[in-house]
Amino acid sequence: MHIRALEWAPSGALRILDQTLLPNEERWLELDRVEAIVEAIRTLRVRGAPAIGVAAAMGLAASMLRSAKLPRERFLKLLEVAAAELAAARPTAVNLMWAMERMRRVARDVEGPTASVFEALHAEAEAIRAEDEAMCRAMGEAGQAVLQGFEVRGARDGERTTTPRTVRILTHCNTGALATAGIGTALSIVYVAHERGVPLHVWADETRPLLQGSRLTAWELSKAGIPHTVLPDGAAASLMAKGEVDVVLVGADRIACNGDTANKVGTYPLAIAARHHKVPFYVVAPGSTFDAECPDGAAIPIEQRPAAEVTRPFGVKVAPAGSAAFNPAFDVTPASLITGWVTERGVLRPPFD
Amino acid sequence: MHIRALEWAPSGALRILDQTLLPNEERWLELDRVEAIVEAIRTLRVRGAPAIGVAAAMGLAASMLRSAKLPRERFLKLLEVAAAELAAARPTAVNLMWAMERMRRVARDVEGPTASVFEALHAEAEAIRAEDEAMCRAMGEAGQAVLQGFEVRGARDGERTTTPRTVRILTHCNTGALATAGIGTALSIVYVAHERGVPLHVWADETRPLLQGSRLTAWELSKAGIPHTVLPDGAAASLMAKGEVDVVLVGADRIACNGDTANKVGTYPLAIAARHHKVPFYVVAPGSTFDAECPDGAAIPIEQRPAAEVTRPFGVKVAPAGSAAFNPAFDVTPASLITGWVTERGVLRPPFD
Repeated sequence: MHIRALEWAPSGALRILDQTLLPNEERWLELDRVEAIVEAIRTLRVRGAPAIGVAAAMGLAASMLRSAKLPRERFLKLLEVAAAELAAARPTAVNLMWAMERMRRVARDVEGPTASVFEALHAEAEAIRAEDEAMCRAMGEAGQAVLQGFEVRGARDGERTTTPRTVRILTHCNTGALATAGIGTALSIVYVAHERGVPLHVWADETRPLLQGSRLTAWELSKAGIPHTVLPDGAAASLMAKGEVDVVLVGADRIACNGDTANKVGTYPLAIAARHHKVPFYVVAPGSTFDAECPDGAAIPIEQRPAAEVTRPFGVKVAPAGSAAFNPAFDVTPASLITGWVTERGVLRPPFD
Repeated sequence: MHIRALEWAPSGALRILDQTLLPNEERWLELDRVEAIVEAIRTLRVRGAPAIGVAAAMGLAASMLRSAKLPRERFLKLLEVAAAELAAARPTAVNLMWAMERMRRVARDVEGPTASVFEALHAEAEAIRAEDEAMCRAMGEAGQAVLQGFEVRGARDGERTTTPRTVRILTHCNTGALATAGIGTALSIVYVAHERGVPLHVWADETRPLLQGSRLTAWELSKAGIPHTVLPDGAAASLMAKGEVDVVLVGADRIACNGDTANKVGTYPLAIAARHHKVPFYVVAPGSTFDAECPDGAAIPIEQRPAAEVTRPFGVKVAPAGSAAFNPAFDVTPASLITGWVTERGVLRPPFD
């Protein structure tokens, strides 16, 4: 059994685990108003590119319940407004726009009265959720290929045999069950390998400023009983220099046509360090993260987050009042630093037709 | 006038500004017992390689006052014990060992009664303090050379002239007045340039886990009125990719004969990123940081700090109880990634005879 962080409430509302309170408190929220869902996405109560796409779709369907008795045209107009508000909640993750576009298309395409449109929306949101869950599993399977080749050879009974040794995986931010509707993107590879008995150790970058690595990834891995160690982001290169990292696995918020990849800030310096140490560096993301409209990384908008996330982390004042902060949520790793892109269809290289 | 973080109390004790409370509280401590000085060094109430050397020398002299009426041999024996305890307080910074060795040598070399030895110790500690102050100024002067060449050419009155533009300096940890007995190591270059009217902007890495960048560097720069912005360590590479960093200046805790340099964790990935972006990367440190006994980086001991600095920053629990943390205080940047070493004698390259 894996963690679930988003689901349908019996009332038809969106039910999410409030991730801002982890690892200290597990509080669930039921949301069925657009403003509340936008707030939950903006403040990262639900986060992770696939999860915000799924949550927005489910939340959009849930929010339309109270309009389900309006005339069709009025309903569709309200839906457009709600979908646009949700799509604007965070600018970098393309999954959000993709999910909103799918929901709008379904509503336009379904014929019949408002009730039929509402039902189709609900079914589409559930399909988006279920597909994400299935894609996580498929990425986990496809990604087993990138964990191969780290066995050490040993001699036994005079013959050369392969003795498995612990595979050391370094990851950044949270890319697990909390970031998706399934077992994760990059972490799906870890979960599937763990199920199959591959000995693993996960190095989890804490991921400043919001510490998704120590707060969320370590929490998930603790629940799953997978050995792991958290570290300040600046210590990852020390591990690579000591030869203690076999492979780096990260998620993505948007992947351009040429393979340039936007992901949580701190991913790009990790990719530079991995290249410097000749450590393979994989991006793991479902098809919905690939943006066919985006030629390269320069075209990806990078969300700037509030300075207080840096200067007042978790309510503690750590910088003088007058000091400014640079706080981009994401950075762009050029395709040239990425070994491969693990998707539900296997390990790809650009161009991604 | 510059900030001072360590000085003699009228009583002859060591007086330090407790850096663990900055930027929120300016509390001074008077210390004259070895255990209290060791505790202050271990818990980083006083930190920065040059400052801990100076503080240990002043503190050692201060602590011997109560033994100044003992017979000479007894006094020297107590001094040896105290110096050894202080030298062991932190293993990576070589300045600490160097300062303790200087103090012990003076005590052995001075003839006459205990009172003369005590006076010589006091004078030597004051000399170490004053020399550090002077070396900071000298590094600041010598380092102006590395800020040259970032002017933009402009046309005025039909002639080509040089219009100074803001020099953008990125730094890590705290290397200013709080880290030394003077105006700093890497930050001395910033202070001297600012005095001379060079337009500057400092990008200050926050420097997890203990946030010396946001807590201390931003505090110093605020007091000095120098424009600056703090950022998560993982965002520095984004700035370099945008062409917004002209030069990286960092301090050092120990420099090996071949130039390999131990400094605050996070320095090494910064050096890799600087090389990747062709940004010059300078280490700024006084002569006492060079360790003639140390052939290369592999011989530098790296202090491991408590996991709680990562998992419970500033009292806030951010990781599950069972999660381990990797928390090295320092990393080693190989000489090949360093553009030059700015010292009180100018900008050097190995071998450092």
